[in-house]
Amino acid sequence: MRIILIGATGTIGKAVAKELGQRHEIVTAGRTSGDLIMDITDTASIRNAFKKAGKFDAVISCAGHVKWAPFPEFTTEDYEFGLKDKLMGQVNLVLIGSEYINDGGSFTLSSGVTDHDPIPMGSSASMVACALSGFVMAAALEMPRGQRLNVVSPGVIEEAMENYGAFFRGHCPVPAARAALGYAKSVEGLQTGQTMRIVF
Amino acid sequence: MRIILIGATGTIGKAVAKELGQRHEIVTAGRTSGDLIMDITDTASIRNAFKKAGKFDAVISCAGHVKWAPFPEFTTEDYEFGLKDKLMGQVNLVLIGSEYINDGGSFTLSSGVTDHDPIPMGSSASMVACALSGFVMAAALEMPRGQRLNVVSPGVIEEAMENYGAFFRGHCPVPAARAALGYAKSVEGLQTGQTMRIVF
Repeated sequence: MRIILIGATGTIGKAVAKELGQRHEIVTAGRTSGDLIMDITDTASIRNAFKKAGKFDAVISCAGHVKWAPFPEFTTEDYEFGLKDKLMGQVNLVLIGSEYINDGGSFTLSSGVTDHDPIPMGSSASMVACALSGFVMAAALEMPRGQRLNVVSPGVIEEAMENYGAFFRGHCPVPAARAALGYAKSVEGLQTGQTMRIVF
Repeated sequence: MRIILIGATGTIGKAVAKELGQRHEIVTAGRTSGDLIMDITDTASIRNAFKKAGKFDAVISCAGHVKWAPFPEFTTEDYEFGLKDKLMGQVNLVLIGSEYINDGGSFTLSSGVTDHDPIPMGSSASMVACALSGFVMAAALEMPRGQRLNVVSPGVIEEAMENYGAFFRGHCPVPAARAALGYAKSVEGLQTGQTMRIVF
């Protein structure tokens, strides 16, 4: 398969490239580097990258950011940031990519453990992760030309514990290589509409 | 208790007013009519209404709209409409109302059965309903001054089947009076962070 991987330089993205690169062609995409330049918060940039990509069979997104703050310090704009970036950025990948991907192609998005296990300062993270699950569950039923759609929800990543550990006390970290298997299952399996939780 | 009810003229809102009005003072709020004029898509309008409201103990929202279309016909703007209206409209009620509500007060939002049971043309509805569940689950843990926060997720309402029945084939309709009990449980009970599903 020919797979477009957005966020290929991140901790999970690198592990996904390693896992799926053993058996498939990986085309990397990122804001500032990669085989394709693509900013997921800009629909024109997404369309431009897909137009340049040539034929492809799968899109994997390991991209997207949200703001973190205790609820009383959150602002409307903080929530809107996550909705525009991690939520609509990934939804737009599917909306636009759906026009260009091969018949039977698949989209695999990324959410996170906050979809069912809330953490301090994580009300935007939980909002966005659950929104992705809901979108995937419903939109998967209406995808054209046999296309599939899933979201991988990994636990906090072991390799990122130095940066994120303080926010995820009590969480059992997941090695990036283990999280990458969720993306392989989505791309190489047959399921659709699923939230694939990778937790220990 | 003194309860601010947004969307009091809708099918569910009327049933909620009837149920809780037996035991509490209901202050109605709406875009064009009610004791308070409030447009939930406008943060200045929300703040203005809460400022004028005087003391209150609970906020109930039976308000919010999303767009409906098959996935291949959806646009970015269609999704953004639901995020601004039904999602952020209700989130802003909590963000702003939290400054004005009495200690121990409660917020009760509205989502819908598409949070777990997707229907045709409902990918925005599922996205927004799940986002509300995620937000409530996480933000409830960080509410100040003992405030509580829940979302009621009613099935398709029996009294609205003439308009919505075609979208909800196979769903067992819920009388509005039954759905209203979910709001009573949220306001008069002790739970917080919950998605209260009212389905038959």
